[in-house]
Amino acid sequence: MSKSFHPPKRTLMGPGPSDVSPRVTAAMGAPTIGHLDPAFVGLMDDIKGLLQYAFRTKNKLTIPVSAPGSAGMESCFVNLLEPGDKAVVCQNGVFGGRMKENVERCGATAIMVQDDWGKPVDPNKVEEALKANPDAKLLAFVHAETSTGARSDAKALTALAHQYDALSLVDSVTGLGGIELDVDGWGIDAIYSGTQKCLSCPPGISPVSFGERAVDVIKNRKTKVQSWFLDMSLVMGYWDGTGGRTYHHTAPVNSMYGLHESLVMLAEEGLEKAWARHAYHHQALAAGIEAMGLRFVVDQEYRLPQLNSVTIPAGVEEAKVRAALLNDYNLEIGAGLGALAGKVWRIGLMGESSCKTNVLLCLGALDAVLTGMGAAINSGRAVAAANAVYKG
Amino acid sequence: MSKSFHPPKRTLMGPGPSDVSPRVTAAMGAPTIGHLDPAFVGLMDDIKGLLQYAFRTKNKLTIPVSAPGSAGMESCFVNLLEPGDKAVVCQNGVFGGRMKENVERCGATAIMVQDDWGKPVDPNKVEEALKANPDAKLLAFVHAETSTGARSDAKALTALAHQYDALSLVDSVTGLGGIELDVDGWGIDAIYSGTQKCLSCPPGISPVSFGERAVDVIKNRKTKVQSWFLDMSLVMGYWDGTGGRTYHHTAPVNSMYGLHESLVMLAEEGLEKAWARHAYHHQALAAGIEAMGLRFVVDQEYRLPQLNSVTIPAGVEEAKVRAALLNDYNLEIGAGLGALAGKVWRIGLMGESSCKTNVLLCLGALDAVLTGMGAAINSGRAVAAANAVYKG
Repeated sequence: MSKSFHPPKRTLMGPGPSDVSPRVTAAMGAPTIGHLDPAFVGLMDDIKGLLQYAFRTKNKLTIPVSAPGSAGMESCFVNLLEPGDKAVVCQNGVFGGRMKENVERCGATAIMVQDDWGKPVDPNKVEEALKANPDAKLLAFVHAETSTGARSDAKALTALAHQYDALSLVDSVTGLGGIELDVDGWGIDAIYSGTQKCLSCPPGISPVSFGERAVDVIKNRKTKVQSWFLDMSLVMGYWDGTGGRTYHHTAPVNSMYGLHESLVMLAEEGLEKAWARHAYHHQALAAGIEAMGLRFVVDQEYRLPQLNSVTIPAGVEEAKVRAALLNDYNLEIGAGLGALAGKVWRIGLMGESSCKTNVLLCLGALDAVLTGMGAAINSGRAVAAANAVYKG
Repeated sequence: MSKSFHPPKRTLMGPGPSDVSPRVTAAMGAPTIGHLDPAFVGLMDDIKGLLQYAFRTKNKLTIPVSAPGSAGMESCFVNLLEPGDKAVVCQNGVFGGRMKENVERCGATAIMVQDDWGKPVDPNKVEEALKANPDAKLLAFVHAETSTGARSDAKALTALAHQYDALSLVDSVTGLGGIELDVDGWGIDAIYSGTQKCLSCPPGISPVSFGERAVDVIKNRKTKVQSWFLDMSLVMGYWDGTGGRTYHHTAPVNSMYGLHESLVMLAEEGLEKAWARHAYHHQALAAGIEAMGLRFVVDQEYRLPQLNSVTIPAGVEEAKVRAALLNDYNLEIGAGLGALAGKVWRIGLMGESSCKTNVLLCLGALDAVLTGMGAAINSGRAVAAANAVYKG
């Protein structure tokens, strides 16, 4: 007979999910109400407004898709692309590859712009691709590559897309709430994110936002969107406040409670302060990592403060290190993904996880475990280096 | 500034979500852990086993899709159909129409078998359609029509599908846990359900199960599944225990806690006992409804105990009645949907909602509200009639 599950209490410093505030888990555990209850409809409106704040947009079609980030990605592609369309897709990590899959499954063609993993997307290559493909409907790229920790210049890339009359479609799953993002200021046409990164909410929901140009494209489609569940022309009828709500699917009510609370917390802190906090604790972590003698995969200029890809010392079995951190310290850090599997660790400082106690725990535990395994690191220096940053 | 949300405490007797046990909401509010954490992987295995129990199947590919029931429906269609395929689709309510949408968005053709709303699917018509379309790849129908409250004979319809060499694809969103369902005994090839009906879990997850024949079809596809997020050949790599877990998407961790607890509770009660409980409380509700002089849309023989479509007395503004129940009694009942909009109420007795206190509250409150509005009902008899059933 199966028994009730009682999860261990972990500190989450992987690539997401990040630590979730007790305020958010408590909100998720509140009593369920109906998805058409007037009280829930009010909550939906509040969530839309809070997401507009977080994305810095006035886009009316700014909503949480009722499924994880992968579905948010898919909702952007399937609504904007039709069979025969062409899209320029930038790949500098795992998620550009997933974008390619999405484009092709829409019956469209993906023109790939490749950059090394750990590097940002190169605007020059993008411009060449856009110039060579004047019929490209959109430019898709990842703002914050979760698989490497590299930040690309979403503002410059969006401007290029517009210069060549293409829409910009942006993955900011790991960016939202952690680094500067200005959907309206930069003119981003479609963007998706996730809840389990810098919003510090459990995984399962994907905030998206579509600008006017993108909505026009959706409204003027020749073919139906291939996904009924993700068809924005239908989803809008449920999330749009005008003229009553039309039932489309049953929204994940309690997950929306959690998302709402996490967004309220973000608004309480203030968006710019949250960005600054992510930058600050990254500095301390970086000082410790470098004092240990480990290196970052991404150059400082392009490094995401919330996702730190760190090289593994020679001769160390990386999975054993992660297992020791998990078993002896209840600390989760991430493995490498795709081309970086087995080559790096990914240390997340996202949302609630971006705090002094986590930085010190991570450095102290990593130092102890690596030293215990006889790894070639500078033992005993990491925590002091981080504390020096905190002392100013 | 937005504030924390505190939902009202409702009694949920609509078409879902149903009342959620405090055990389940407490489970959802437990600390988040990683989606690749060994403790979470153990939970995933436990959920698979519990779903096999609930579906009565040994199907290895029995998993919870990380999105609501509509995505569960879509996962069945997009994995089994390819462009140019043909499917026989039965429609006797809203959800057969949604199946048609899914078939067509796969580039396949839907051969429709229509029955009146409130009636079960007619096996004779289905046989005619299968006979006339020997190339039909599958037969799709709704076991428990949430929009009307009619139960169709899933066993007979599945046998017909197999007789004509088609797969059976079954919607049992409202059926699972509430009425007899025997996936292996009846030979169902693909089935999807939802968490927010008779499992009494918050909405957001869709249990699905695919049998061997269906898995063979998926493995031998000529084209890629049009949805990356719902591609079972990829999802399997994450949920399959053999050879380690491959990251596909980030599972909604806390929602899985809730689903697990609700399935533990179902196993504690026992599946047959849960079915019997649903039948029992329906009898009491029906006695009260009929004593009031209201009628059921669905004949007793085909009536779902968990979803009661009840006619609205002449001259009554139905939305005002629902508003009064919600505002004065914190009681939610459902409106009609599609062809039955404005014509019926849908009273759910699903999962935790299927209990004596809810039956008496609903009858007592409905009696009071309708009497207060001067509706032509037999006032003051409903609760006594239900109590007579409970007394035996």
